[in-house]
Amino acid sequence: MKLLRFVQNGKEGWAVCQPGRDSWHGTTEDAPAYIGSLDEVIKAGSHALQAAIDDMAAQDPIDLQAVRLLPPLSQPGKIICVGLNYHDHSMESGFEQPDYPTLFSRFSTSLTGHDEPIFHSSLSDTLDFEGELAVVIGKGGGNIARDQALDHVLAYSVFNDGSVREYQFKSPQWMMGKNFDRTGGFGPWLVTADELPAGASGLRLETRLNGVTVQSANTQDMVFDVASLIAILSEAITLEAGDLIVAGTPSGVGHARDPKLYMRPGDVCEVEIEGIGLLRNQIESRAAIQ
Amino acid sequence: MKLLRFVQNGKEGWAVCQPGRDSWHGTTEDAPAYIGSLDEVIKAGSHALQAAIDDMAAQDPIDLQAVRLLPPLSQPGKIICVGLNYHDHSMESGFEQPDYPTLFSRFSTSLTGHDEPIFHSSLSDTLDFEGELAVVIGKGGGNIARDQALDHVLAYSVFNDGSVREYQFKSPQWMMGKNFDRTGGFGPWLVTADELPAGASGLRLETRLNGVTVQSANTQDMVFDVASLIAILSEAITLEAGDLIVAGTPSGVGHARDPKLYMRPGDVCEVEIEGIGLLRNQIESRAAIQ
Repeated sequence: MKLLRFVQNGKEGWAVCQPGRDSWHGTTEDAPAYIGSLDEVIKAGSHALQAAIDDMAAQDPIDLQAVRLLPPLSQPGKIICVGLNYHDHSMESGFEQPDYPTLFSRFSTSLTGHDEPIFHSSLSDTLDFEGELAVVIGKGGGNIARDQALDHVLAYSVFNDGSVREYQFKSPQWMMGKNFDRTGGFGPWLVTADELPAGASGLRLETRLNGVTVQSANTQDMVFDVASLIAILSEAITLEAGDLIVAGTPSGVGHARDPKLYMRPGDVCEVEIEGIGLLRNQIESRAAIQ
Repeated sequence: MKLLRFVQNGKEGWAVCQPGRDSWHGTTEDAPAYIGSLDEVIKAGSHALQAAIDDMAAQDPIDLQAVRLLPPLSQPGKIICVGLNYHDHSMESGFEQPDYPTLFSRFSTSLTGHDEPIFHSSLSDTLDFEGELAVVIGKGGGNIARDQALDHVLAYSVFNDGSVREYQFKSPQWMMGKNFDRTGGFGPWLVTADELPAGASGLRLETRLNGVTVQSANTQDMVFDVASLIAILSEAITLEAGDLIVAGTPSGVGHARDPKLYMRPGDVCEVEIEGIGLLRNQIESRAAIQ
């Protein structure tokens, strides 16, 4: 099952694509059958979500060519990002591999959907790509055991953790460089966990800038796999349905290259994860935040 | 004007205290006059908030002794925390004073209200206090000029940025140690900006552990004042009504002492800011997150 959010004629909606099909069905918020936003039904828990999915699957088809996609979640309760989660990326970045996850967070104002622009701020020319696996929590909890952790995953998606390196390293904490408006590509859709290998492990992840492959890795090479991340996080932090974990990037980022390779207005960046989908964003200059 | 959230008979509500008075008026969510949560009316903007305040002020009095207080906001769109924002604290922490704000964030699961417990996790005995000024955004925006920044502030409050030092320093990023469940004391209420000096500057801030003063400072000593923080943040990140900025702690934290002074179950920690209020939390052992 795939789930996505879209805008059509100025109205937000969401749609589902059932396994083995390639047609999408759903509706916008102004339709009588609309049950609530995708964020809301995911936060309401698995029963509410299943009922909502059944309702949506019975709606008219949605032509994806005729709508604009949105980030699959608009307001995750948490966006927890993992740094240094592939050995070769930790090495290229000059960090010793920590034996505990390196965690930071994003705000929802930093998200942008598939085929939507990633903003290039006039403040800095150091906007970098980071292709990553995204994990959506479907069932919350605290102290989740590692061997039960994957039961808490609703779905996976693709993320481009666009990073303004100059601002990431202006202070000891990375937050600012990871939170410029609309720098985090997210989408195109969610793929439910039942359609993928356990923990979305063993999937090829590739990032391409203007068609040239710049990152190529496999999700099985993550230092902390999805189950471990959920177990470690939930020791201290209660996870909730709708929370998003962005699981870290492999080597090949532009900042670690010589010469450095940053994203410029007019560039197109794609992140593709086998079995999940292809996330594409064009880089767009934004002189001033509106 | 003061605003607070509370629970009475299992129902959430909010209340207002008008300037010069000491009576609180408001209602719970089950009353016909209830317009929406305090979070919702703040996010709806200043007109909606003013109308809601007028409605609430006309309700029956609320006896604060008969209710349980909640964090004044339950789900801020962003909780942006500032580290190293007092020179003497940067020095005691062994950091060079950065010339750009050191930023990290909290999730709403880490908040706890006035007179509610701060949780002491069994994972670590390094739970530390950090008394801080909290700033609530009332009017969002991007690229906010410093000389107009204070127009975007709705209110101020008191925060105890409870930090599990062992986990804060397990990786290069502080997030985990700053986000243990219910470690961030917030309250008791919001005080609107019109009742305080510009930028809440020049106010005495004091933290007491079991009645002993452990931090004593003045908000005028912040390296980046409230207006500067808003201007710098909004260059890159669109601020929204209901966002929370936690403005950093002065010197005196337990982790920088010799011997170290951490908070233990049974301790009582108070943070008081002149003209805003006194936030008190008892430290409570929590063997396992429910």
